[in-house]
Amino acid sequence: MINFRAVFRFVVVLLLVVSGFMLTPIIWALVDGETGTIRAFLIPVLVLIPLGMAGLRLSSTDFQDVSTRDGFLMVSLGWSAVSLFGAIPFVLSGAIPSYVNALFETMSGFTTTGASILVEIEALPRSILFWRSLTHWLGGMGIIVLTVAIFPLLGIGGLQLIKAEAPGPRVDKLTPKVTETAKILWVTYLLFSGAETVLLLFGGMDLFDSLTHTFGTMATGGFSPRNGSVGAYDSAYIDGVITVFMVLAGVNFVIYHRFVTRRVHSIVQDGELRAYLGIFAVGSIITALVLAERYGGFWGGLRYGSFQVASLLTTTGFATADYAVWPYFTQTILFVLMFVGGSSGSTGGGIKVVRVVTMLKQGWNEMRYLVYPRGVFAIRLSGERLRKDIVYAISGFVMLYLVVILLTTLVVAAAGNDIVTSLTTALATLGNIGPGFGAIGPTQNYAFFPGWIKVFLTVVMMLGRLEIYTVMVLFTRRFWRQQ
Amino acid sequence: MINFRAVFRFVVVLLLVVSGFMLTPIIWALVDGETGTIRAFLIPVLVLIPLGMAGLRLSSTDFQDVSTRDGFLMVSLGWSAVSLFGAIPFVLSGAIPSYVNALFETMSGFTTTGASILVEIEALPRSILFWRSLTHWLGGMGIIVLTVAIFPLLGIGGLQLIKAEAPGPRVDKLTPKVTETAKILWVTYLLFSGAETVLLLFGGMDLFDSLTHTFGTMATGGFSPRNGSVGAYDSAYIDGVITVFMVLAGVNFVIYHRFVTRRVHSIVQDGELRAYLGIFAVGSIITALVLAERYGGFWGGLRYGSFQVASLLTTTGFATADYAVWPYFTQTILFVLMFVGGSSGSTGGGIKVVRVVTMLKQGWNEMRYLVYPRGVFAIRLSGERLRKDIVYAISGFVMLYLVVILLTTLVVAAAGNDIVTSLTTALATLGNIGPGFGAIGPTQNYAFFPGWIKVFLTVVMMLGRLEIYTVMVLFTRRFWRQQ
Repeated sequence: MINFRAVFRFVVVLLLVVSGFMLTPIIWALVDGETGTIRAFLIPVLVLIPLGMAGLRLSSTDFQDVSTRDGFLMVSLGWSAVSLFGAIPFVLSGAIPSYVNALFETMSGFTTTGASILVEIEALPRSILFWRSLTHWLGGMGIIVLTVAIFPLLGIGGLQLIKAEAPGPRVDKLTPKVTETAKILWVTYLLFSGAETVLLLFGGMDLFDSLTHTFGTMATGGFSPRNGSVGAYDSAYIDGVITVFMVLAGVNFVIYHRFVTRRVHSIVQDGELRAYLGIFAVGSIITALVLAERYGGFWGGLRYGSFQVASLLTTTGFATADYAVWPYFTQTILFVLMFVGGSSGSTGGGIKVVRVVTMLKQGWNEMRYLVYPRGVFAIRLSGERLRKDIVYAISGFVMLYLVVILLTTLVVAAAGNDIVTSLTTALATLGNIGPGFGAIGPTQNYAFFPGWIKVFLTVVMMLGRLEIYTVMVLFTRRFWRQQ
Repeated sequence: MINFRAVFRFVVVLLLVVSGFMLTPIIWALVDGETGTIRAFLIPVLVLIPLGMAGLRLSSTDFQDVSTRDGFLMVSLGWSAVSLFGAIPFVLSGAIPSYVNALFETMSGFTTTGASILVEIEALPRSILFWRSLTHWLGGMGIIVLTVAIFPLLGIGGLQLIKAEAPGPRVDKLTPKVTETAKILWVTYLLFSGAETVLLLFGGMDLFDSLTHTFGTMATGGFSPRNGSVGAYDSAYIDGVITVFMVLAGVNFVIYHRFVTRRVHSIVQDGELRAYLGIFAVGSIITALVLAERYGGFWGGLRYGSFQVASLLTTTGFATADYAVWPYFTQTILFVLMFVGGSSGSTGGGIKVVRVVTMLKQGWNEMRYLVYPRGVFAIRLSGERLRKDIVYAISGFVMLYLVVILLTTLVVAAAGNDIVTSLTTALATLGNIGPGFGAIGPTQNYAFFPGWIKVFLTVVMMLGRLEIYTVMVLFTRRFWRQQ
């Protein structure tokens, strides 16, 4: 039996938390004296609070009875509710008059995608832009807890791998330990955010720009309050700071947890971390070499190349240059990186490095069987044997991911878009990246898509963020069957 | 220990067989009175025969001692030797002066890819064009035997699935049963080839054109002696015949074997066949609807749409229209089909329908575990349970395939080609399709690539045709280790 009361209660609590954060943009409205937008934030909050409080009273329940199945429902409904609710200020303020557009922008925010339907960003009041960037930061916070503490319990796509604790027997109940892990992760996230904000302030950014760019970086989101994204500042220092923090945000946060608990040995051994940093390093150096001519030497090439490699690998989506006019080779490197994504347990999206590495090892492993058909060969990652059922789950996930990419490509193409636009739109939304190539290149936006494509892509962004299965499982008969 | 004698003997026999076929184009030289090219075919044959005979005498050996490991070496060396040898007439005749180009064209022929470096095809003598198309037909013959009789024994990428006999325990020796199976497959292949030739003659093609197009169709190759490919005839009848035979050639030949042995029930139940025909039907109808406007109604759309869907799904590569100027939606459908390929045990290339179906089922299956983590769920195909190790092998293959696609894309892009050209070049060569999009669209060719890319793509075509593992395993230390 699904515990609907608990699910309802969870969604209400989540909405109340978000509505609390929804009051912070009002500060910017007051600072700037643009009182017109205050209403847009106050009304939804004031309507929600009494309703939510009443809902909580009606739904008193024991969270001990929550099962993994309830977990699936909580995650999907929670994410949808927050996006539906968070879109309201955009509409009420008149910043984004169409609710479909506002929902797209908000989902893009909470899923840390960074795909935008805004054409003239700088024309909007700062309170609105702050809320827009804040959805990134909240979404990033949410996703770290989900991928480190919740998804492993739900057993999604092999994410059992990244539990903060040593892998034990499968746990079927959401335990209070989650709260404890979540706390450590959030503190790390807060500390990094604070550090980046300070470093950006040093670089000459004002507080507003520092905060919003920090939100976009740490969440690997990519919304910028500037039309020209990070490129607008034209500062090597700022580019460097953001590159470093994008890379940090794309690391599994469990690594930082281990750092605090002094398990340094396990950090050095971590297969995903090594692969992730290796991809970043190799990608940066190659693009730097190719771009050297364009940007006055290797270091210039490295500045622009490593920024863009970090931006697309970690699925952030910031830009300091129009990479769509770079040499085809660098374009293709960035295109290939769009298939990889950040580390599991980070705020990054995509397939995730750990899954890519596992599948590569499995592909290689099969070769041993060809030579010794009767042999028994294990896949090792970070020095440990990978359980077969986890490899199995990962291969299932990767295939599903690719199928959703191809189907999304077909749907976008049905609206009259060319192959590159359609394919990279699929990669950029399912992978929570933001920009791609063609009509959604780094200097473009998603405004031109017809409404039904925007609605469709809103769903795709959520699918990608919640590791597909979390949402898809709700559409199986088995899920709803009495047990 | 690897039985080098047996491997050597196998390669020599293969070369002798091919050299026999190399004499047939001389007939066309005599018919046309263009005696200049006769020399180009005679010289390599006359040099090879005495050398080969001497080689056979030196290498007398017992084929009973052949192991699966020798099998890998035989297949890879055999395919390479035949291509290296088959390229000679192109160079000697002056038709393709550069050996690199000639090797590319011959490998493209034997791998039934159909990618061509020829710019002005119709300017070449018929003997040369006949040989070019004959490499398709021989390659198609070879690949059917390999995928139905040899690869399953080698255990490559889950192809154990398609053994002609009911799956039994793994056989480690190449048995004489192979010869028997091969005979039935070849008879089928010959009968279909005969039937298509006759039907094309009825349609007004002359004997030369009928034969060469039959070779290109049955091998799912795609070389045409006409610059305008099949479109040059502008005949609905010819389009129809070739569409039907492309679809027939993309079916697992084991199905025809079963038909002869009256196991009709197992044909109807065959999961791969149903999926393959389903994809063809759905793809054809959708493209027909989209193209209806362009080609005067649904039937006109169906004529051109189904031809191109069959051509790219079966990895043939013939064209009756410049599909690169069709609406983006149909382009994208064709692009997505390039990922699928023909059935296993057919002459078609690509990932293969059976693998795609298995991986989809596995992706779906994982969802059941999310709801019932302690359940035991099997994947069923054609009414039978799929062994886990086979699903495992398939997922390893598919991942490796995608990795090779992405790496090939990067290499092609490094030569200064755009994303669409690079990506579809990878798909078209590894998948043995031929044409793609961008600079290698249906009205283009591979001539413009620099020499090193042509050499690289020659290897990629062979990798794709031999299911990647067959070749790659030779580059592992384990393979060469003493047992």
